[in-house]
Amino acid sequence: MHIEQASESELKTRLEELYASYDQLAERKLALDLTRGKPGVEQVSLSDSLDGVLAGDYRAADGTDVRNYGGLDGLAEARALFGALIGTTPEETLVGGNSSLTLMYQVVDFAMNEGLRGEDTAWALNDSIKFLCPVPGYDRHFSICEYMHIEMIPVPLLESGPDMDEVEKLVKADPSIKGIWCVPRFSNPTGTVYSDDTVERIARLPQIAGDHFIVMWDNAYAVHTLYDDAPALAPISEYCRKYDTMDGVFQFGSTSKITFAGAGVSFIGSSERNLSTLKAHLAFQTIGPDKVNQLRHVRFLKDSAGVTEHMEKHAALIRPRFEAVLDTLDRELGGTGMGEWTAPRGGYFVSFDTRPGLAQEVVDLAGNIGVKLTPAGATFPYGKDEADRNIRLAPTFPSAADVQASVDAFVVCVKLASVKQRLAELEG
Amino acid sequence: MHIEQASESELKTRLEELYASYDQLAERKLALDLTRGKPGVEQVSLSDSLDGVLAGDYRAADGTDVRNYGGLDGLAEARALFGALIGTTPEETLVGGNSSLTLMYQVVDFAMNEGLRGEDTAWALNDSIKFLCPVPGYDRHFSICEYMHIEMIPVPLLESGPDMDEVEKLVKADPSIKGIWCVPRFSNPTGTVYSDDTVERIARLPQIAGDHFIVMWDNAYAVHTLYDDAPALAPISEYCRKYDTMDGVFQFGSTSKITFAGAGVSFIGSSERNLSTLKAHLAFQTIGPDKVNQLRHVRFLKDSAGVTEHMEKHAALIRPRFEAVLDTLDRELGGTGMGEWTAPRGGYFVSFDTRPGLAQEVVDLAGNIGVKLTPAGATFPYGKDEADRNIRLAPTFPSAADVQASVDAFVVCVKLASVKQRLAELEG
Repeated sequence: MHIEQASESELKTRLEELYASYDQLAERKLALDLTRGKPGVEQVSLSDSLDGVLAGDYRAADGTDVRNYGGLDGLAEARALFGALIGTTPEETLVGGNSSLTLMYQVVDFAMNEGLRGEDTAWALNDSIKFLCPVPGYDRHFSICEYMHIEMIPVPLLESGPDMDEVEKLVKADPSIKGIWCVPRFSNPTGTVYSDDTVERIARLPQIAGDHFIVMWDNAYAVHTLYDDAPALAPISEYCRKYDTMDGVFQFGSTSKITFAGAGVSFIGSSERNLSTLKAHLAFQTIGPDKVNQLRHVRFLKDSAGVTEHMEKHAALIRPRFEAVLDTLDRELGGTGMGEWTAPRGGYFVSFDTRPGLAQEVVDLAGNIGVKLTPAGATFPYGKDEADRNIRLAPTFPSAADVQASVDAFVVCVKLASVKQRLAELEG
Repeated sequence: MHIEQASESELKTRLEELYASYDQLAERKLALDLTRGKPGVEQVSLSDSLDGVLAGDYRAADGTDVRNYGGLDGLAEARALFGALIGTTPEETLVGGNSSLTLMYQVVDFAMNEGLRGEDTAWALNDSIKFLCPVPGYDRHFSICEYMHIEMIPVPLLESGPDMDEVEKLVKADPSIKGIWCVPRFSNPTGTVYSDDTVERIARLPQIAGDHFIVMWDNAYAVHTLYDDAPALAPISEYCRKYDTMDGVFQFGSTSKITFAGAGVSFIGSSERNLSTLKAHLAFQTIGPDKVNQLRHVRFLKDSAGVTEHMEKHAALIRPRFEAVLDTLDRELGGTGMGEWTAPRGGYFVSFDTRPGLAQEVVDLAGNIGVKLTPAGATFPYGKDEADRNIRLAPTFPSAADVQASVDAFVVCVKLASVKQRLAELEG
């Protein structure tokens, strides 16, 4: 029954039952955790043969001895493999260390303090710098902005991606807006895949925005499909070539959720001019990335087909966890008006919206009975979800049984908070 | 015969012979390179079993699954192993990624822009920031300063280390001096090992310098001995404890010249307070270092004794190369007044001083017959060796035969330049 159709007495009875369920859960002394977008132990085990895959052969295809210094670009074969994943040529691809977050930080840092087109283009020379942040989004993107004193402007994330009418209006009106964060396929946390039209409009943004505007295209889940029929993402590189905006788009990816989390390789795709600028800066802080690990990854993953095959194994492991979450939400909350949620076809998260004003309470209720959820607000700039609705659920890391136990507890907390709130409305 | 005792006619005859030798060398179309402080192929091969050493066991001693995210400090056992090498406790040790240069850059960056003791301690708030640079020194240290707009003040490197009378005088007189670069054991390029007294005086510097002064203690060659009797380095950590200056000293090291160059692990030793500050900054740009590679290194190197044993194998490979250089210099240039050089007991370099004003010419002469030498001036801030004397020779990377051929050609170039110069002096 829809919560708004229930009578006060029905709700009161329901509340008693929910308190009883909640108390029973409390007695179970649960210690569950749905917070982290981390691969599970079975997932990382899929790549166990990475260590040893070189079999003593440390030579790259071009003869480079990967055991020695040199090369800020990364190995040629790694640039070819990972460029293919994001639609950039090897020349437009730089393969780095173990963290794409580091690459993103470095791009923003250099654009801010050194200037992507020479010293006099450094954003820091302006009084104020702003970024557009589709919401809900990824907290570590927002943290980089906060750290750099970049003002964040939230824009709604629609089913098609960022609200492009709003985005275009904003960048035309305010030249101090210098960037936008995008997770274009299986967005964190909603699982949104940007529509072709949205991708094309984003590729054009550098044309209509102020000088030195950049798109931060964090394609973290580029190949992380749960189902064969998952929507494809239009290749932004092709639109960039069409509109000559490659200089205004930085694409990022990593193998953290393909092989080992935090021990994979990261990569960046952009114009050759941008990569050349980046390398000039990077040379001051590193002699080059870990090429041994890059060669391991190429030998292990082989090519795009190898990546696809490998990702199917991941999907087989985590699909049941996502289905446990979604089946339970459908069964327990479907049609009740107590929440809305996404049904992603890939990625690492389910995004849940409570009735307005309840996200923090649900997170607290769950926390009090041993079910750790991502802090309410974490998916918004400055940690502020004005509507207090969004909760990010991350079902990949716990065991299938723990995911089920967590979501069972979660729905009790959602119902409890919702019924309490609805009763207060009726009584108020 | 000493060049200054030779008559003009003797020198002229000698010059003819040298031109003949030089022309013969030119005809050999050499392609030799003494520029890079890189391990040779046999050296890196010593660590080939790193890949595969985990044998499928990806659990750290405390149960941490190194295949997953987490932990800015690095693995506990890696902190213990590498802390032991530099005399810091595991709590005072952070193990990072593949580059100690990155760690150094980050420390200077944070001290400059964010402040090691809070925002109002950021060096950037001052009009001018200066660093002391013992010379000759390491160009990549100087590059970080140049990039950060830190003014470099050269101070002489004596046989005991930096000229501490000069250093102490300078830091007392000028509070805008915020740091000093040190390579305390087997300095790049001279091979100097700082004396115990120098180490103690450096450990006291933060007491007598202005606020937020730091010692950048790049112990890159901490265990890189060529001979068993190589001088030990006094442990600066102990002096820091004595003078309560651990907050003012950052020690750095890496396994780049222990295992794989650019594919090893780096580490930093400092006060727990400093590491805690650093981690707060690092959290904005990374989720953590590659723990898989850290575990590989611990399994492979085992403990300090394992490191020593491993380094003896390196020494056995590179000692003959150093001896080829030094024997040739002694035989060909000893007592001639045409140069002075160091005879290091460890490290990666031989530092050669020509007669004043000849370094650039010798480098050019060698380059013209296919023997690449480190650019003259590279060992000085801003690339400026006022006396134009210093040339860094790096004999580890080429084959033993190539080292011999290179140094044979080098001495011809030194002699040629010296005799020409002496003749000009006599004629002038």
